Amino acid sequence: MADEIVLLDSWASPFGMRVRIALAEKGVKYEYKEEDLRNKSPLLLQMNAVHKKIPVLIHNGKPICESLIAIQYIDEVWNHKSPLLPSDPYPRAQARFWSDYVDNKFHDYSRKVVATKGEELETAKKELIDCLRLLEDQLGNKPYFGGDNLGFVDVALVPFYSFFKALETFGNLNIEAECPKLIAWAKRCLQKESVSKSIADQHKVYGMVCEMRKKIGLE
Amino acid sequence: MADEIVLLDSWASPFGMRVRIALAEKGVKYEYKEEDLRNKSPLLLQMNAVHKKIPVLIHNGKPICESLIAIQYIDEVWNHKSPLLPSDPYPRAQARFWSDYVDNKFHDYSRKVVATKGEELETAKKELIDCLRLLEDQLGNKPYFGGDNLGFVDVALVPFYSFFKALETFGNLNIEAECPKLIAWAKRCLQKESVSKSIADQHKVYGMVCEMRKKIGLE
Repeated sequence: MADEIVLLDSWASPFGMRVRIALAEKGVKYEYKEEDLRNKSPLLLQMNAVHKKIPVLIHNGKPICESLIAIQYIDEVWNHKSPLLPSDPYPRAQARFWSDYVDNKFHDYSRKVVATKGEELETAKKELIDCLRLLEDQLGNKPYFGGDNLGFVDVALVPFYSFFKALETFGNLNIEAECPKLIAWAKRCLQKESVSKSIADQHKVYGMVCEMRKKIGLE
Repeated sequence: MADEIVLLDSWASPFGMRVRIALAEKGVKYEYKEEDLRNKSPLLLQMNAVHKKIPVLIHNGKPICESLIAIQYIDEVWNHKSPLLPSDPYPRAQARFWSDYVDNKFHDYSRKVVATKGEELETAKKELIDCLRLLEDQLGNKPYFGGDNLGFVDVALVPFYSFFKALETFGNLNIEAECPKLIAWAKRCLQKESVSKSIADQHKVYGMVCEMRKKIGLE
C-alpha cells in the first residue's frame, strides 16, 4: 500500500513552506490541506493537540509537528535522495544550530519589524540587520548554506524571503544593499522548482501583512 | 591522540546538566569548567559568540552550543553505547517533539513560578501542573520516556527535578500529589550514577533561587 501523506498548512506560513520544500526536494507526493487559522479544523486540533499549530505532516495517520522536526523526519524517512543534513556529526550540529538561530532570533526580529513601531521597531531593525549579516557570514562564498546543494539551513531560512518586501517596506530597509550575498543566495534557491513552487509570493505576503497591521491598529 | 573534551557549564544550569548526563551515559571523560555567569570567560565568549551562553561542549577545539543539539551530537559521535535517540524516524521525531516541549513550555512555566507573583504566578502554576500532567501521560507505564532505558527526553527533562523544591515552595505546589508517576520516574532516573552525579541538589538550587528572588525584589 502506498504511503498516505497529508500536510496541514497555511499558505503564508514560513514554517509550512519549509515542509513543502523538503517534501519537494525528496520528490514526495502529498495532499495539501489549507487550514483556516481563525477556524481550525477538527483534524488539526486532533493531530496537534499540544500546540494546535500548523504545519502538521501526517504520515500514514501519524502526525509530525514542529517544522524543523518534520524536516529531519522527512530527511530520515526519504533518505534515498537530496540529503538535507550533512552526514558528519559536527556539520550536522552546526546546521541544527543555525536553523535554531533562524527560529529563535531571525523570526522574532522579523515579527517585530512588521508588528511594532517607535523605539521597539528601531531596535528590531538593527537586530534584524545584524542577524542577516551574521547569516550572510555563515553562508560565506558557498552557493548554499548546505555547500554545493540545498541543505537544512537553506530550507529553514529561504521561506522568510517571502517576507522581505514587507520587512523592507515597514522597516524602511534595503536588505539587498545591506546583505547582497544573501539576496543572491535567495534568488539562487528560487531557481530550484522545489523552492519556487513551495514559497509564497512576496506581494501576496505583503498584502497579508498589511491586513494584519490594520487589525492590530498599526495602519 | 586522545580526544580533548571540555564542558563550559554552570552548576545550576538544567541545560548544562543535560550535557553532563549524556557524557556520563556514554562514559566520556571530559574537563568541566565552571563559568561565572556575571563575569563570563574569554573562552566562553569566543566559543559561543552568538548567544554567549553555557553550556558549550568543546570537542577537539570545536564548540557545540545549545544543549539539545549537544546531546544529539554526543549521541551521534559516541554511538557505541547507550543510544539516546531511538533509531526509527517516527519515535525520533516524537522524542525531539517532547524535548522541544520541555524547552519551550515547561521551562517557561517553571521560570515564571519562581520569578513572578500575583495573577502571573497563579496562571503559571496552573500551566506548570497541566504541563507536568501531559508529560506524565507521555511517560505512561514505561520506566523511562525512552522505554526500558534512559533516552533523549529523560535526559532533557530530569535536570529540572533539581528545581522541584523551589517550584513547590514558591508555587505552593505538591508535585508528588499531582503527578506521582513523574516523581517515581525522577527517583528512578536518580538511581543511575550518570544522573545522580550530574544533577544539582534540590536544596542547593533552592538556596540559589532564594538569592535570585531577593535580587529581583520578590523576597
